[in-house]
Amino acid sequence: MRVLVLGGDGYLGWPTALHLSARGHEVAVLDNLARRQYDTELGTSSLVPIRDLSDRVDAWSRVSGRSITSYVGDLVDFNFLSGVVEQFAPQAIVHFGEQRSAPYSMIDRDHAVYTQTNNLVGTLNLIYAIAVNDPNIHLVKLGTMGEYGTPNIDIEEGFIEITHNGRTDTLPFPKQPGSFYHLSKVHDSHNIAFACRVWGLRATDLNQGIVYGQETPETTLHPDLATRLDYDAVFGTVLNRFIVQAVTGSPLTVYGKGRQTRGMLNICDTLACVELALLSPAEIGEFRVFNQFTESFSINEMAALVVEALPGSHTIDHLPDPRVEAEDHYYRAAHTKLLDLGLSPHLLDGEVIRGIASVVETHRQLVDPSVMRPLVDWRSVTTGAQPPPASPWLRAGQTLVESPNEFSFRSL
Amino acid sequence: MRVLVLGGDGYLGWPTALHLSARGHEVAVLDNLARRQYDTELGTSSLVPIRDLSDRVDAWSRVSGRSITSYVGDLVDFNFLSGVVEQFAPQAIVHFGEQRSAPYSMIDRDHAVYTQTNNLVGTLNLIYAIAVNDPNIHLVKLGTMGEYGTPNIDIEEGFIEITHNGRTDTLPFPKQPGSFYHLSKVHDSHNIAFACRVWGLRATDLNQGIVYGQETPETTLHPDLATRLDYDAVFGTVLNRFIVQAVTGSPLTVYGKGRQTRGMLNICDTLACVELALLSPAEIGEFRVFNQFTESFSINEMAALVVEALPGSHTIDHLPDPRVEAEDHYYRAAHTKLLDLGLSPHLLDGEVIRGIASVVETHRQLVDPSVMRPLVDWRSVTTGAQPPPASPWLRAGQTLVESPNEFSFRSL
Repeated sequence: MRVLVLGGDGYLGWPTALHLSARGHEVAVLDNLARRQYDTELGTSSLVPIRDLSDRVDAWSRVSGRSITSYVGDLVDFNFLSGVVEQFAPQAIVHFGEQRSAPYSMIDRDHAVYTQTNNLVGTLNLIYAIAVNDPNIHLVKLGTMGEYGTPNIDIEEGFIEITHNGRTDTLPFPKQPGSFYHLSKVHDSHNIAFACRVWGLRATDLNQGIVYGQETPETTLHPDLATRLDYDAVFGTVLNRFIVQAVTGSPLTVYGKGRQTRGMLNICDTLACVELALLSPAEIGEFRVFNQFTESFSINEMAALVVEALPGSHTIDHLPDPRVEAEDHYYRAAHTKLLDLGLSPHLLDGEVIRGIASVVETHRQLVDPSVMRPLVDWRSVTTGAQPPPASPWLRAGQTLVESPNEFSFRSL
Repeated sequence: MRVLVLGGDGYLGWPTALHLSARGHEVAVLDNLARRQYDTELGTSSLVPIRDLSDRVDAWSRVSGRSITSYVGDLVDFNFLSGVVEQFAPQAIVHFGEQRSAPYSMIDRDHAVYTQTNNLVGTLNLIYAIAVNDPNIHLVKLGTMGEYGTPNIDIEEGFIEITHNGRTDTLPFPKQPGSFYHLSKVHDSHNIAFACRVWGLRATDLNQGIVYGQETPETTLHPDLATRLDYDAVFGTVLNRFIVQAVTGSPLTVYGKGRQTRGMLNICDTLACVELALLSPAEIGEFRVFNQFTESFSINEMAALVVEALPGSHTIDHLPDPRVEAEDHYYRAAHTKLLDLGLSPHLLDGEVIRGIASVVETHRQLVDPSVMRPLVDWRSVTTGAQPPPASPWLRAGQTLVESPNEFSFRSL
């Protein structure tokens, strides 16, 4: 199968591309390298050193004898995107190409607007590029379990049958996302569902849980094939961060009560799920939703697993929750559709945690503890660091008073 | 009350500003005059001549002795918007300032992306401007009944109690919008609900039906105070268009079977509803939704009302439906909250239709029948009229093949 992986230079996009290539698919990646720019902006970097995209692709060619085509450019540039889709002529497109951090989207107005416009316009361009080039292309879009929020009823996979005043319909599951990032994914889901309905596109929305782990069968073939390991408070996913904290003797930072419960999955299961979705594509005109996680844990449970798995004594710091979220809530979410397609989950246990810890141990001299402090506060409203431009629109006699522009990072 | 009306130069924004000013509120309008640019782009114009914003404001001052402050600028420019909010210091902001036409959003990719980014970024900027300047400002946001689509159950006002697997929660009503424009309103609703939850903003989302009529008690005080009357296939609302067609002896153009049923309201009720919402503001942190319409009609019923009310013989043309929508569907939507606040509806009858027809009669020599043809086709996918820019991102040896760029207007 010919598969184009958008965001193919990222934490999950790159190992997905390798996995699909190893399994014999013809793979191209498209990326604007924005994730590397966020590192520069935030003063962070992957704990495991990663190579440039062109070096990675070359290394894969040497190691596997297989080639991955790379396109460097922006989904927001429609003509670039559409040109790639026409030239590579994929049968499926896997879309990881979005700004994926909730805290990043909550830094200030600039980052909120960037996140929503980047994700929304990229995905709008994508559905147009598919529609004009080949409506048969199967779009496999990465969403998030965070689209649902934490309703007080069971979460279903995308749709729910509702009986109301004696009538029944199956409708999109109501969404209560918890950040401007999560909101951008809800916007995407609505836009894609519409494109399937109106233009007969076929799409699978993978509402993914929180991913942990860094090694896959392909990335470990050579150091130049490694994917990112993020542990900072903005882009690091929580289990990876806990393990870095435990290995380096820092307290594990739990936000609030720690009873927030979320769906989780191993990085290897991400790759398997994407391939399963590709091999059993959505029908023409179908917008289907899979909840892509294998287990649910509360933050406290994750911290306890790490403490138990790793030698030494560890402390847990309960910090004030910088997010606005229910700290005690019901959580039960369906996730049977990928299992029905044949997923064999890699479950979380001490051995998995010790495996990640050994990767961290190898690079522990690179750990920067300062980046793990949660400095982005959901409740703090600031508007951005840029100086205000001149406002030619104001009428004579009016004055423009500058709005507060202090940076939003709260010191702990 | 100090009220800032965004989009205050538009079809409904202008008469709302006049109404609030006449009722003794201190009113400012903010507008980027985009609606007038759409006319230039589409080769259309209001059937009733309208004056420039500055002339309208001057006329109101002469006629009423009251002043309306005007700010010309773009909601997408945060510093402009925030400066206005700080300077005018409103207690409430009425937000009509969005691209409001479903067909316009469906012209091609450029118009879809414009509509969604314009509406989304303007509203994001607005919630930030409120949050940083004065979180107590009551946001009264114009949404649309089209956010709901046509589910096979009763539509409630924004939220629905769902019992599922033995548990119950009240959740956002599922949305199935039918165009990129309607989708933009759904995106806005999710973003605003989040801002209320996280920052304690107070907002009323008015999910408005299709508005008809052109005269209000204030706009008829002087010809320079008139608001728009649109009858074209892109911006004209359906009842206004039927009346223009009937008066000028053109066939009434019904799309598809004409059994599509929608909530409707008189322009005077729009003004009353906005004021009722302002006078009973949402609580701090509350995101409330009112369904703002007074009666439901199918397209066929509307056409029949016009035929019956106006003298002469009229023909009805059933054109192929350019939209993708259910032509036969269940439709029952709650709309009691505004009635509970005291709304006395102006219902649709022959006299109302003859009133609008007499306005049309006055300007009938200005009618351009060609603009009433529905040339925007939901099923036609085109990408825009701009030439593709150079793509510096393509690697050496790659070529960019231009995507189809023909314009999307389908001739009937």
